[in-house]
Amino acid sequence: MKLVMEFCFDVIILDVIVHRNSNYNLEVQTLRKSKEVEGASVKIIPLGGLEQIGMNITAFEYEDSIIVVDCGISFPEDEMLGIDLVIPDITYLKENASKVKGFVFTHGHEDHIGAVPYVLKEMNVPIYATRLTMGIIENKLREHNLMKTTKRKVIKYGQSVNLGDFRIEFIRTNHSIGDAAALAIYSPAGIIVHTGDFKVDYTPVFGDVIDLQRFGELGKKGVLALMCDSTNAMKPGFTMSETTVGKTFDNLFQENTKHRIIVATFASNVDRVQQILNSAHKYGRKVAIEGRSMVSIISTASELGYLNVPDNIIIETEQMKNYTDDQLVVITTGSQGESMAALSRMAASIHKKITIKPGDTVIFSSTPIPGNEKSVSKVINELAMKGAKVIFQDTHVSGHACQEEIKLIYALTKPKYAIPVHGEYRHLMVHADLAQEMGVPKENTFILSSGDVLQLSKEEARVVDKVPARGIMVDGLGVGDVGNIVLRDRQHLSENGLIIIVVTLEKYTNQVLAGPDIVSRGFVYVRESEDLMDEARVVVNDALEYCYDKNITDWGKIKNEVRDALSDYIWKRTKRNPMILPIIMEI
Amino acid sequence: MKLVMEFCFDVIILDVIVHRNSNYNLEVQTLRKSKEVEGASVKIIPLGGLEQIGMNITAFEYEDSIIVVDCGISFPEDEMLGIDLVIPDITYLKENASKVKGFVFTHGHEDHIGAVPYVLKEMNVPIYATRLTMGIIENKLREHNLMKTTKRKVIKYGQSVNLGDFRIEFIRTNHSIGDAAALAIYSPAGIIVHTGDFKVDYTPVFGDVIDLQRFGELGKKGVLALMCDSTNAMKPGFTMSETTVGKTFDNLFQENTKHRIIVATFASNVDRVQQILNSAHKYGRKVAIEGRSMVSIISTASELGYLNVPDNIIIETEQMKNYTDDQLVVITTGSQGESMAALSRMAASIHKKITIKPGDTVIFSSTPIPGNEKSVSKVINELAMKGAKVIFQDTHVSGHACQEEIKLIYALTKPKYAIPVHGEYRHLMVHADLAQEMGVPKENTFILSSGDVLQLSKEEARVVDKVPARGIMVDGLGVGDVGNIVLRDRQHLSENGLIIIVVTLEKYTNQVLAGPDIVSRGFVYVRESEDLMDEARVVVNDALEYCYDKNITDWGKIKNEVRDALSDYIWKRTKRNPMILPIIMEI
Repeated sequence: MKLVMEFCFDVIILDVIVHRNSNYNLEVQTLRKSKEVEGASVKIIPLGGLEQIGMNITAFEYEDSIIVVDCGISFPEDEMLGIDLVIPDITYLKENASKVKGFVFTHGHEDHIGAVPYVLKEMNVPIYATRLTMGIIENKLREHNLMKTTKRKVIKYGQSVNLGDFRIEFIRTNHSIGDAAALAIYSPAGIIVHTGDFKVDYTPVFGDVIDLQRFGELGKKGVLALMCDSTNAMKPGFTMSETTVGKTFDNLFQENTKHRIIVATFASNVDRVQQILNSAHKYGRKVAIEGRSMVSIISTASELGYLNVPDNIIIETEQMKNYTDDQLVVITTGSQGESMAALSRMAASIHKKITIKPGDTVIFSSTPIPGNEKSVSKVINELAMKGAKVIFQDTHVSGHACQEEIKLIYALTKPKYAIPVHGEYRHLMVHADLAQEMGVPKENTFILSSGDVLQLSKEEARVVDKVPARGIMVDGLGVGDVGNIVLRDRQHLSENGLIIIVVTLEKYTNQVLAGPDIVSRGFVYVRESEDLMDEARVVVNDALEYCYDKNITDWGKIKNEVRDALSDYIWKRTKRNPMILPIIMEI
Repeated sequence: MKLVMEFCFDVIILDVIVHRNSNYNLEVQTLRKSKEVEGASVKIIPLGGLEQIGMNITAFEYEDSIIVVDCGISFPEDEMLGIDLVIPDITYLKENASKVKGFVFTHGHEDHIGAVPYVLKEMNVPIYATRLTMGIIENKLREHNLMKTTKRKVIKYGQSVNLGDFRIEFIRTNHSIGDAAALAIYSPAGIIVHTGDFKVDYTPVFGDVIDLQRFGELGKKGVLALMCDSTNAMKPGFTMSETTVGKTFDNLFQENTKHRIIVATFASNVDRVQQILNSAHKYGRKVAIEGRSMVSIISTASELGYLNVPDNIIIETEQMKNYTDDQLVVITTGSQGESMAALSRMAASIHKKITIKPGDTVIFSSTPIPGNEKSVSKVINELAMKGAKVIFQDTHVSGHACQEEIKLIYALTKPKYAIPVHGEYRHLMVHADLAQEMGVPKENTFILSSGDVLQLSKEEARVVDKVPARGIMVDGLGVGDVGNIVLRDRQHLSENGLIIIVVTLEKYTNQVLAGPDIVSRGFVYVRESEDLMDEARVVVNDALEYCYDKNITDWGKIKNEVRDALSDYIWKRTKRNPMILPIIMEI
């Protein structure tokens, strides 16, 4: 908190410059700002996103300038019981707050923008993004009441922004959401290209194909380092175009003319939603939208012109009763089997407005994210039991580049250094192999860990330092107040439950005045285990008597005696290991 | 327990009869025992295994005879916190204990035999299985000290056993373990064929191809009902032969001559282990075995002749130091990323004897079971970070029949009724469609739920009753003592932790004599949240004072006041919902 208060807002001139602009002054300014300095070295500091999927955030530092690319969340690991989400540790940025010139964003997905409100509460920094990305960020800022205090600037493809000693150019890419950008980061040490999440889609649903020419042009100028998406680095070949899914939708709509069609997909997949709307329009169906995030993103994307919504096609869920099944489509969240999402609630018959009925055609336009397979199966089984027809095939393509696309970017940019990003270790490793196949020497390929400080110049590159980069767990309003001890307790409680022993002792004499009372939760159903609990009470009494007889007066020792005796007994009787909590009061 | 004591052990003559035997008397006896009765109806009662994968157990009942096919466990669902395994509810069998003539088993996998010791402790019933299956069951009986009290009989393929009004013939099938059998159950209502888990493998690793002739012969005689494996019913085509994996092993051993090879697979996949041994032998490597279940099953299978272990090939792990890396293979458990299995311990550097080093070639000869994907990824990442080469491709085939194999069984048996078994609802449903494609009328296809009592005769079939068939949860030594209330508490504790408030009150006056003391676990790290805990104490004190002032003396009401006040406060401050446990003592 101290650091936040010390941080003085820097007045920054937002020099937005169109490259290849004929205006002489601007060109000169660009050159001046992005001039390379002989022997200069720049630091690349990933604060997340490496050795994991999600929580993407990377700082770039040169002397008194730091810029940050993306600021995402990750979802909690299985062992992070009760945690809502994980945000990056920005200790390093706070310690260097006066240097931080701005955050730039590659696209509007949670793993790239989700932590923005948390970070802006800690340090007020201007933010730069393309229009749709900014629109989605602004929804978050409004929720957190941060709109007034946050300097924001929308950048178009092809434009650049000067931030301290860096210039950052936004380059058009393809992904599963519109307005995705790669970044060319002009630093005094050379040009660093960061792809963000991308794929090569020659027939994108929205906008144009990725600006491969510009990648080539940059390659010709000379690219110092390429930081490229590794998500699909283990998959050979090319990722299919998003439009292929549209064709599948058309076929499915044509084959299932009599029934209601329900399509579940990611709210964040705006292009997918567009294609569902297209098919619905083509086959004369109205569309109801279910799920809070789906409603929010559709409204933002259509307001900003990234979603072409045919007139009068969208209806309120309440209006569905005015139409027959063959006139209806529902677009819903819940494609990952998330227990509280709209589709899961429909499947479990706890959705207030939509009841699944025989004949409903439910399309899962997604693949399960690792870890979600069982929840998705559960939803499918529930839907099938209600007579719904569930369809999975050919209704999803990835938004990430496969091996041939990754190679293409290397072929165009021909970087001196390769720094694979966005992936677990196994993805990064396979990506490093690809980079070497494409001519990057092994010693110029860096598999970094989050927190590594990679210093690189035209002459050499090496990891020179390590900064804090563990994830910060968010539980309710609490940011970082749940740590490993709390999680270990939750784990213990979740598997074994607990037994509490309360006893009131007389001060000085240590005679038992009340209790011992035994209370348990999550251990056994007490009414059916009376013998066990009665015997447990005897064991505790014996332990207390032993302490009294032996004149043991130290509370810590008494607690240990009780805990050990009871723990032994419970283990022998049940082969279980509940948490045992002795509490002593004194009068 | 009462039922168990009432259960009188029935002296049963174990009539083991070789069918197609020329011995006239035996043939006559066979015919007598399996004679069909005009208008007879038999009951099929799945007590598990439907709408789920695992916990296979099905009872067949005719008048005073009940026989049971298989008796497996299932693994706990995610929400079953702390549960070790789930066993079937045999209430119905115990209520009809005098009728139960025996248990017959299709093969030696946990989901078909795992619950045997638990059930035999409740009711002493003879058991029948092929040799390897019996060998694996006997390992369990020895562990549970049940060998002396359990009547056991090994049955060969082609042999039958008479149990009450039923005769059960064991038919050779293929699966991922040797000695797998389908069962022809001759009942007074007709022949019921139960496939068990099976595939059609024309080039099996051990033994011969599934006895398709016998399926055809039975079909010609007339099959009343077919109960067929649905595990792979959603997969088109044919399952590849197990021997194809052997070829992949050979290739991998040939390509990786310089390094140590570590192969992870299921202990229960005896045929897979055979092929690893074969490749090791061919390439002159010694084999160390890691993982308790792997050691146990290899020893049982090789003793019984189901595993052909080349002389002197197996070495103790301690002996590995006497060999160079290119002379070694390790066969290990842990292919599913199970945290305590040998491979996971190697990956996490906590295995006592084996340390992963750069160059180690680790082959995952398995595919992740749904739900295990993340754990498997974690192990792969850890192995990769230690420099190991991880191989996944083409080193696994399923042990279950795909669609074309299922159709083959229908074509051979041409059953009147189809009862898909072994699968979640979605699998059963697709299987039902296949059955109909193969000519079984829709009204003769039954998707049952566990506990359904299906009564069927040549004339008609319908579900006539429902018996208890929920899974019984086993936690340590406790069988069934953890129910929904305990699980709900564990869930609550796991996500939110708990706060305990202890206060000692004076009897009659209800004046506070000691406390309130506040203890929390799994909520926040208290040392860093002192303000919160201090304020919580104030809130509790206020609530107690309020009760005292208002003369509220009922403990239940006092506890509610305290709980509500604290809960409100905690929610407002943290948006969290810990379990709050007020404990009152009195003096």
